[in-house]
Amino acid sequence: MSELAVTFANVQSAAAILAPLVHRTPVMTCDTLNRLSGRELFFKCEHLQKVGAFKFRGASHAVACLSASQKQNGVCTHSSGNHAQALALAARQQGIPAYIVMPKTAPQVKVDSVRGYGAEITFCESTQAAREEAAREIVERTGATFIHPYDNAQVIAGQGTAALELLEEIPDLDAIICPVGGGGLASGTSLAAHGINPRLQVYAAEPLGADDTYRSCQTGTRQPVGTPNTIADGLLTSVGELTWPILRTHIEEVLTVSDDQIVEAMQLLWSRMKQVVEPSGAVPLAALLNHLLPSGVNKVGVILSGGNVDLNRLPW
Amino acid sequence: MSELAVTFANVQSAAAILAPLVHRTPVMTCDTLNRLSGRELFFKCEHLQKVGAFKFRGASHAVACLSASQKQNGVCTHSSGNHAQALALAARQQGIPAYIVMPKTAPQVKVDSVRGYGAEITFCESTQAAREEAAREIVERTGATFIHPYDNAQVIAGQGTAALELLEEIPDLDAIICPVGGGGLASGTSLAAHGINPRLQVYAAEPLGADDTYRSCQTGTRQPVGTPNTIADGLLTSVGELTWPILRTHIEEVLTVSDDQIVEAMQLLWSRMKQVVEPSGAVPLAALLNHLLPSGVNKVGVILSGGNVDLNRLPW
Repeated sequence: MSELAVTFANVQSAAAILAPLVHRTPVMTCDTLNRLSGRELFFKCEHLQKVGAFKFRGASHAVACLSASQKQNGVCTHSSGNHAQALALAARQQGIPAYIVMPKTAPQVKVDSVRGYGAEITFCESTQAAREEAAREIVERTGATFIHPYDNAQVIAGQGTAALELLEEIPDLDAIICPVGGGGLASGTSLAAHGINPRLQVYAAEPLGADDTYRSCQTGTRQPVGTPNTIADGLLTSVGELTWPILRTHIEEVLTVSDDQIVEAMQLLWSRMKQVVEPSGAVPLAALLNHLLPSGVNKVGVILSGGNVDLNRLPW
Repeated sequence: MSELAVTFANVQSAAAILAPLVHRTPVMTCDTLNRLSGRELFFKCEHLQKVGAFKFRGASHAVACLSASQKQNGVCTHSSGNHAQALALAARQQGIPAYIVMPKTAPQVKVDSVRGYGAEITFCESTQAAREEAAREIVERTGATFIHPYDNAQVIAGQGTAALELLEEIPDLDAIICPVGGGGLASGTSLAAHGINPRLQVYAAEPLGADDTYRSCQTGTRQPVGTPNTIADGLLTSVGELTWPILRTHIEEVLTVSDDQIVEAMQLLWSRMKQVVEPSGAVPLAALLNHLLPSGVNKVGVILSGGNVDLNRLPW
């Protein structure tokens, strides 16, 4: 097997760089969810991270790792999701320009948010090809550095710092579970977990309607997501070139859940923990509530990955 | 003026009794809400208290203060709100019976919750007279002690412990603001605040549609609430006989807000702080966002009093 693109040392270095830039988010517990899942759960609250998602860690780390001359020219990405807001705020916080390509169809609230962080927005058609082309043009014109939402070594290392903090606080976890879309969070989490304790089990939870990582693990080769169909709109992307080898090496198992199970878990997070967590962030709890983890795995860390939801369009 | 029913020493004693029984809730901050209010806000998260509301403090303290023979006969109250759940769980946690009178019209979810905590429920017509009569019958039959939701010295002292914890963590606040309905939380909070720092300003925030405390302060005598009409369903009650003299002595000012302002504040708590707070709990933030506090009051503690909301009936 070829060497992995990111190491535990990269995650540790990212943690030192990010300490003054990101929130150290709290770890919460909930008696009701312990009872319902039959385990002891420790929720790492990345929905309370800046911009409301763990994505701010990876984006901030990628920006911080740029050379002085790269910083002058700024950063660029294409995204309609949390990565766009994360990169926009990370760039502003570190005083460099950000160019964000968004589809014309992006929700106004997300456009306003990215613009509010001072980024320059370029609108394009909503196809993947149009987005990539628009980003390429910006990079050529401005010299900005393209920051991929997950297939980027600095981004992966940054995302791993959430698990690092969780394990500092609760060192005797039996397992950690996090959602998987492109795999940035899951790969960073697994590197952090096994860097601290090689016997710790790392699980990735994935919507049935976008189960490319599950299928990749079943077949042993990276599978594209095809046409995803799930309420977990943060997990629509295919597992990446850099993230896949890390996941294949470090992930115990990919657990898949239905949209109904995701919505039920989300409602419990809102009604019992009083936490606004987006559908993608509820996917790991859905796996736990449906008892998909093996017995004997008692103390489980759960990454609540994000909390950006349109309150006027709730799935119940 | 006659002596007050509760003292700072009672609040301190309650804190010692409650330490092993209640959650020490976290204090949160939010850059966006600081910016929008123009102040530095510290949110005491009582929506993360057991049963999702500060009411668990007062109820637990009242139960703990019973004599051994009183404990044998249990406790009784009439309530369709958070006090019913709080007393039911407090009684179960301390191993005594609880008899709760609820109106036939109470939402099923609240009935299920009270029953889930092991209380015996008696249904009655939804008038105040019917509730009081039903409770009186139970007290006569069982010898249970009636625990009023706010006009009870142990309850008031218990509610004050939230502010005590907040001031232990953030000792240099300029002011504390909390919602006022019957005045249990507001009176306990003001006793705690002035016991620690007599110069600290305590504000009560009240819905315009149930502004009896505001009118009581204006006229100098306790005014009934009349027919309340507000979305803040935890604040429909009239200020009490025991709470009113405390409020009159310790509260700087009662600030009133409209239902629209309450809903706007609630939405911001959900969308920006990612916290599920009920309308009553958003009333203080509504006052802050509408700049009802005098200038010069910079560091403000805000009691987020509860988080019990029907997710299927949101006010937007």
